[in-house]
Amino acid sequence: MFNVYLSGEIHTDWRDEIKKLSFEKKLNIFFSNPELNHEYSDRCGNSILGEETNQFWSDHKSAKINLIRTRKVIKEADIVIVKFGNKYKQWNAAFDAGFCIALNKSLIVMHDDSNQHALKEVDASALAVVKNAEEVVKILSYVIDGKL
Amino acid sequence: MFNVYLSGEIHTDWRDEIKKLSFEKKLNIFFSNPELNHEYSDRCGNSILGEETNQFWSDHKSAKINLIRTRKVIKEADIVIVKFGNKYKQWNAAFDAGFCIALNKSLIVMHDDSNQHALKEVDASALAVVKNAEEVVKILSYVIDGKL
Amino acid sequence: MFNVYLSGEIHTDWRDEIKKLSFEKKLNIFFSNPELNHEYSDRCGNSILGEETNQFWSDHKSAKINLIRTRKVIKEADIVIVKFGNKYKQWNAAFDAGFCIALNKSLIVMHDDSNQHALKEVDASALAVVKNAEEVVKILSYVIDGKL
Amino acid sequence: MFNVYLSGEIHTDWRDEIKKLSFEKKLNIFFSNPELNHEYSDRCGNSILGEETNQFWSDHKSAKINLIRTRKVIKEADIVIVKFGNKYKQWNAAFDAGFCIALNKSLIVMHDDSNQHALKEVDASALAVVKNAEEVVKILSYVIDGKL
Amino acid sequence: MFNVYLSGEIHTDWRDEIKKLSFEKKLNIFFSNPELNHEYSDRCGNSILGEETNQFWSDHKSAKINLIRTRKVIKEADIVIVKFGNKYKQWNAAFDAGFCIALNKSLIVMHDDSNQHALKEVDASALAVVKNAEEVVKILSYVIDGKL
Amino acid sequence: MFNVYLSGEIHTDWRDEIKKLSFEKKLNIFFSNPELNHEYSDRCGNSILGEETNQFWSDHKSAKINLIRTRKVIKEADIVIVKFGNKYKQWNAAFDAGFCIALNKSLIVMHDDSNQHALKEVDASALAVVKNAEEVVKILSYVIDGKL
Amino acid sequence: MFNVYLSGEIHTDWRDEIKKLSFEKKLNIFFSNPELNHEYSDRCGNSILGEETNQFWSDHKSAKINLIRTRKVIKEADIVIVKFGNKYKQWNAAFDAGFCIALNKSLIVMHDDSNQHALKEVDASALAVVKNAEEVVKILSYVIDGKL
Amino acid sequence: MFNVYLSGEIHTDWRDEIKKLSFEKKLNIFFSNPELNHEYSDRCGNSILGEETNQFWSDHKSAKINLIRTRKVIKEADIVIVKFGNKYKQWNAAFDAGFCIALNKSLIVMHDDSNQHALKEVDASALAVVKNAEEVVKILSYVIDGKL
Repeated sequence: MFNVYLSGEIHTDWRDEIKKLSFEKKLNIFFSNPELNHEYSDRCGNSILGEETNQFWSDHKSAKINLIRTRKVIKEADIVIVKFGNKYKQWNAAFDAGFCIALNKSLIVMHDDSNQHALKEVDASALAVVKNAEEVVKILSYVIDGKL
Repeated sequence: MFNVYLSGEIHTDWRDEIKKLSFEKKLNIFFSNPELNHEYSDRCGNSILGEETNQFWSDHKSAKINLIRTRKVIKEADIVIVKFGNKYKQWNAAFDAGFCIALNKSLIVMHDDSNQHALKEVDASALAVVKNAEEVVKILSYVIDGKL
Repeated sequence: MFNVYLSGEIHTDWRDEIKKLSFEKKLNIFFSNPELNHEYSDRCGNSILGEETNQFWSDHKSAKINLIRTRKVIKEADIVIVKFGNKYKQWNAAFDAGFCIALNKSLIVMHDDSNQHALKEVDASALAVVKNAEEVVKILSYVIDGKL
Repeated sequence: MFNVYLSGEIHTDWRDEIKKLSFEKKLNIFFSNPELNHEYSDRCGNSILGEETNQFWSDHKSAKINLIRTRKVIKEADIVIVKFGNKYKQWNAAFDAGFCIALNKSLIVMHDDSNQHALKEVDASALAVVKNAEEVVKILSYVIDGKL
Repeated sequence: MFNVYLSGEIHTDWRDEIKKLSFEKKLNIFFSNPELNHEYSDRCGNSILGEETNQFWSDHKSAKINLIRTRKVIKEADIVIVKFGNKYKQWNAAFDAGFCIALNKSLIVMHDDSNQHALKEVDASALAVVKNAEEVVKILSYVIDGKL
Repeated sequence: MFNVYLSGEIHTDWRDEIKKLSFEKKLNIFFSNPELNHEYSDRCGNSILGEETNQFWSDHKSAKINLIRTRKVIKEADIVIVKFGNKYKQWNAAFDAGFCIALNKSLIVMHDDSNQHALKEVDASALAVVKNAEEVVKILSYVIDGKL
Repeated sequence: MFNVYLSGEIHTDWRDEIKKLSFEKKLNIFFSNPELNHEYSDRCGNSILGEETNQFWSDHKSAKINLIRTRKVIKEADIVIVKFGNKYKQWNAAFDAGFCIALNKSLIVMHDDSNQHALKEVDASALAVVKNAEEVVKILSYVIDGKL
Repeated sequence: MFNVYLSGEIHTDWRDEIKKLSFEKKLNIFFSNPELNHEYSDRCGNSILGEETNQFWSDHKSAKINLIRTRKVIKEADIVIVKFGNKYKQWNAAFDAGFCIALNKSLIVMHDDSNQHALKEVDASALAVVKNAEEVVKILSYVIDGKL
């Protein structure tokens, strides 16, 4: 069984597309993801451990709690797929990518042509650079089941 | 001796400021940095190994050659300082930060308030978040020489 | 499934509280703990391997046998929760925390305000600092099931 | 050359004793230590990066900056000597000890008999348990120069 | 259960022989292999991610996608069996062997006498050098079930 | 579940004793061992891969094949129990013990008083030194089920 | 200073070319190489440890002694340059390349176009693929001194 | 420079022979060894830390102090040479050999024919098996200076 972590962009449905297509091809995959509820991921710290008046520490508390999850799923992943979009800075996505490469995970980067030059260092460490969910699932299908 | 790698933003003189202030304080530091000539870092692949017509592979070749340097300096660093600015996407800076954390390097992140929320995941793994070169050198001076 | 090691204080029922609350929320967790019978943990060495007249070696034998268990459960843990109370020195709890951090485990520290300053170095390496079992389980519920 | 990190108690002069005795024996040792100025170690965060009104975050900032130093010296140490006294909780000393053991450093623990039982788990991972600076330096002299 | 990765030559049926003989002996083994369809392994990159006119980048894209699979199966393998034949250069087989040794995998090399001298460096790191599938399965049977 | 590797002496029935006593206590343990048939372990190389006239290479071939098994079971073990007897040199048992300690396995050494001084270096790295199978199983029962 | 290991082909003078050009550019490099005397590398085992009548064991003894050197120089290398030529099978060169990649060394592969397809798996793990010594030294000069 | 640790037998002058021959050949080697004074190595614990009446703990204290030295020199060694003689059990020598192999050190084993069969498992992990100091130094000379 392959363990695939879907990192990056959380405001589009690219994860569902990959899961749906993988399910149709009956691929034996366990998918994981970061917290996908943007609001939850921002306020989990304050919500659970009490309000912070200072924005830095407020974000700090939440970001660390989110790390408990991402560390676990990255550590267990065979393949990490990181999706970059045009909205938001997405530095956390690039951070995840760097973290994965240092742990020798297989990295697949997903983005459109407009971000190609800006992502050249991330792409250079990836084993595949793709444009959409279809390409991701074709790779997974080939790698897992040998089907092309 | 401390080994400090200065990663991130390359179009301002923040590295020189840190070096100058550290020199004035006589701190025992070996500084390293990525290739700072933006044009060189973009075209080293084509320049050395031959032109590519495809922009992706052109960037790919250059990015990989740059990796030879950054891998070496990151591996030898005790402290990695990553500076984020408002210009460019700087995904490579965030990538470096993630890579360093996975290797258990001490990370110091430098950015102004406007990027605070977007950098919360990177800041959450740092041992210090600073606003300018003066703060960096105060930390280095304290950590190395115990002066406050 | 998450693997959670509950380290530290053994004379209160904080572990049972966490387990009960986690069970109510149907969290998919495997909990482990050190030997909780204080007397057993003190005299297992003498009891199994023969009496020592010297208190140092008596403690030494028992502490090493207890290490067989704690090493195993720490190695397998995703999350280590260390509870500090006001009774006893609890240096073994802080020792466990340091051990876990060096192994890149996610650390949650539990203590009340009175020990905050004394625990600042331990807290600085934690991903969350909590006051009670309710907060622990809220974090586990959020991290595992994404519920807030 | 041996690299020896002197961790723990900072309000007595045990480090100077060890250094003086080692110097007299002409032992080839590089000694390192955490920040020894208690006040500095408490307020370095606020002093360098700005005041925090909240005690927790104030301590947090300082503790993390101190970590930049301790991580470096621990990583480079062959031998880590941790001194426990009767004043203060010294959880950071036990944390350092656990961290060192996980990194396979040779640990020497220094304490008097009154703390023997409370330190049994820490002692159980040590290669020597000593009472004073004289014993430490006799060990260093034997280990480095083979003199008894 | 033993996890055995069958690397190297893909144009003969040596893998089937090993699997058949192991099945007959009811050995508890999970076998893995690289992509065995030579054409697929050559054109997976172009097929999934779009045609490349340049042969180098065409091969590059495919080779990296194949790496996603081989990294996974090598990482999970207890034993790696590498078969060298007389056809093709098979540098990838030798590359796999070197990669496995650096990861402390148990290596079994399979080749006939004609390649003995050329493979002496690879053989020198192996735990067994065999001539055919029968010898492989005898070793597996002995190692797993203690039968000779 | 605990994974326990029983290394060392193969001409007495100490392994069966441990297994029988553990079974009676219903301990949840997976036991592994090296090849126990002395003759097989000596001649597996010649038997499978062809006769060697030179005793050194004959032993070499067999010893390496046996390594395929021992590496696997050691890597998967939580606890390694090494039994030293008075017959034979048993350098392989001491070799296993050193190998295990470098991999941070929990080591239990079993021997009678007559070998105590000669085994002091091995004992010094162990978490328990025992005299017989009963003591081993008492430790396992305590460590796994908390029963004393 | 960069540490560069020159692996592969030993019957041409490509190493001298690289060293000469690097010297002219005053690059701060420590170069290492395997044993370059082909005859010595083949017969060192027999020569030092006594003749073997069996070719396999003769090669085995020599190959292992050569490993003492190559392990040392690979472990210390920042960059490994592997040259493939058309003469000989050069499986040891590909083995070295795989070994280096597993140790996260920066790999530069040198070969002409005729071997491009056969080396695609090795090239896919390299940070640069070059045709000659000039290109190697241009990369070293750029990576070390930032000159293009 | 090569770092060579000379482990094992301490009652003959084999280390001096190796050092003398290496000096004559001007080999660039840093040699290290365990404590060579047998009496010191037995009683260092009691001598420094106080008498133990129980022989086990007396040996335990000394063996652990000796470990401080051996861990340091093994960790820094490129090559470990372990000499087995006929006197004493020398389980500590075999323990050192196993420890080194797990750390991927290059192992050379030195013994005469009478111990060949008993040492087959240790020899199987070595890169050379030699009979005397002359052979050791020939290997060192070849590996370091390429002279045969």
